[in-house]
Parts: sequence; structure tokens; C-alpha cells
Amino acid sequence: MANPDPIEKLILELGRLPGIGERTAARLAFFVLKQARDSARFDLPPLAQDLAGALVEVVEQVRLCEDCQNLCTGPKCSICTDARRDTRALCVVEGVADLRAIESCGVFRGHYHVLHGSLAPLDGVGPEELKLSDILERVRSQHYEEVILATNATVEGDATALYIGRLLRGTSVRITRLASGVPLGGELEYLDHATLGRALSARQSF
Amino acid sequence: MANPDPIEKLILELGRLPGIGERTAARLAFFVLKQARDSARFDLPPLAQDLAGALVEVVEQVRLCEDCQNLCTGPKCSICTDARRDTRALCVVEGVADLRAIESCGVFRGHYHVLHGSLAPLDGVGPEELKLSDILERVRSQHYEEVILATNATVEGDATALYIGRLLRGTSVRITRLASGVPLGGELEYLDHATLGRALSARQSF
Repeated sequence: MANPDPIEKLILELGRLPGIGERTAARLAFFVLKQARDSARFDLPPLAQDLAGALVEVVEQVRLCEDCQNLCTGPKCSICTDARRDTRALCVVEGVADLRAIESCGVFRGHYHVLHGSLAPLDGVGPEELKLSDILERVRSQHYEEVILATNATVEGDATALYIGRLLRGTSVRITRLASGVPLGGELEYLDHATLGRALSARQSF
Repeated sequence: MANPDPIEKLILELGRLPGIGERTAARLAFFVLKQARDSARFDLPPLAQDLAGALVEVVEQVRLCEDCQNLCTGPKCSICTDARRDTRALCVVEGVADLRAIESCGVFRGHYHVLHGSLAPLDGVGPEELKLSDILERVRSQHYEEVILATNATVEGDATALYIGRLLRGTSVRITRLASGVPLGGELEYLDHATLGRALSARQSF
């Protein structure tokens, strides 16, 4: 069509988000339109405008921390630049959601390293696809005493932990893995804080 | 904060959508950011930008059809301006999603009237809050022969149908309601009592 329907276009774009099917996308689009009509009555900026601004802003401003690959707006993230953090421990996580989950349980006060994925050879994700290259360099230069492998308790997470464990075998760093408490097949992102905290406190030599 | 974190802002805005909790909002935000990094590699516009554009466009361009209150980009919607539609029947629905559902089943070829809600006195939604005012006027001036009350089979939908039925009592138009009963493929054993009771009461000659 020369002039595609803006509603269909919005439904299409919303449907590109994970876990949002066509019906949910349509429901969200109609909600956005109704909310815009309602907010116009009170001269408020509609959600659509706020959300569009937030989307553009996040892509423009957010990048990866030079040190740990966490999301941030400056060259380094707020954790890496926080002088009060424990500089002896490094926690390796698969994604930013995992980092947030660990942060919110309040047990760990060290630094992070975000891999942005896990090893999945069948999906074509090898060590090169992950932010793995500078872990060894970082551990050596920053003199970490402990590396906690906090990848998911899945096949891919275990394989990733195993790989990093071997990578660091030549160093004097103590390598640990999250303790029992993480149910097999479970993902950190969806774990309750108490279980995650227990798993961190009882971490074992790897 | 003077300079709020754009990620937290996006999570907040996404969380304003219906059915999207804080965790889902965070997952969507991280997906959007990862997708932006991936698409940047291939010099493609990121989903964030496409979605933001679609959101702004939909609010700017979409309004309500002068006749039926359906969503459209011009003064009248594509159904009201389609000369091939049956101008004798008017189908009253609660929302645009209902209109789309009826359209996609391909049985009805007449006009619509979208209420954008249903009567819910306990929630403060009375006849004034719905797009009800011009139904009577529209039925009289357009000489519809039948008005199908296709509101939901809920307490609110039934109440709304009842109200409109009374509103149109003075006219010569034939008023009908969607048949209510056993859904196709439904098994009596698993059907709720109310539906089964209604299906029995409204049984038809075979």
C-alpha cells in the first residue's frame, strides 16, 4: 500500500517484541489510542509520546560499559565507577537482567562482567559471540581474588561456566559457582530474591 | 534525579501498558536494546526507532470516524465509505477489537457503531461516557432496518444492550442480539453452568 494504515503498522511493530502476539499487539495499540484520547482531554502528554521518547532516548544514550559490558549512559557504568564496591570479586553473568536480579538481592557488592548471552554451539553462539575476550585480561590486571560464575543453571549456562573456568585455570584467582538453591532449569531473572541470595552466600569452589 | 536513567524510564513507560508488569517491561527494554545493537551491525533501523515512529504516527493520524466511531485516518472510516457495504444493518459493538473480530469472521457486511466501552455504573461509566448519543439519530436518519446488539455476553454487555434496546424502542427498527449458547467445538461436560443454562433456555427447532 502507498499509505499504510498507522494502526496496522503499530500492531506490526508491537508484535516484533518478544512474547507479544498479534492479538496482544492489537490490544496494546487500542489501549495506546484510547489513552491518547483520554489524556488529550486533560492536556497531558499521551503515553504514546512518552513511550516513543523513551525508546528513542534509550537507543541514543545507552551503551555498554567499557569495563563490564553493563548498560550505561557514560563510558563506564555506575557499578564500575562506584568506589565503595568490593574490587576483589568479579561476578560473571549472562545478561543485564541477571545483573539486576543479583543486585536487588543485596548480597554481592563486587564488580560484574556481562556476557550478553551464553555458549550455544547448536545456535552458532561460540566464545567469539560473547563478551568473553577481555575476562582473562581483566582478571589479571585488576587483581580480582575471586570470580563467581553466575551463569544460569541451564545446559548453556553450565557450559559457559565450564568454558570460563578453563580459561581462568592458569590464574591464581579463586573460581566459584553459584551454590545449590538455584533450581535446575531455572533462570536467574525469574528467581525469588531469597533463593538467589542463598545461592550467592553458599557459593562453592568450582 | 536530575538526569533519570533512560533504561529505567523506558521500563516505567512500558510498564504503563496493560498486562505488562515490571519484569516483563524490563525484559522488553533489554530486548529493544539488544536488538538495536544487533541491527546497528547491519545498518538497519532499530525496532526502537520503528516502534517510536509508529507510536507518534498513530496518535497524530488516527481519529474516530464521524459516523461509527471506528478508528480511521480520514473523517470517515473505510467501512462507512465503502459503497458495497449493506446499508440496512447496523452492528453495535463495545470496542474496535470486537469490530475487527466480527469483520474477520466474514459473515456481517453492514455498518458498525463503536461504543468505546460498556455501561458500568459501579465504575462511573454511564450512558454519557459512551458514544451512545447519536445512535438514535443515526438509526432514524440512515433508515437502518436492523440493529444487532453485539456487546459482550457479560453483565456490563447485557446491561448496555438492554439500555440501547430501550433507547430504540420507539423506532420501527428490528433489534437483535448475538445468539448465546454452546461455542462450536465445545463439550457440554466442560461448559460452565450459565452458558449451558442459556443454551437450553434459548433452544431452537431442529
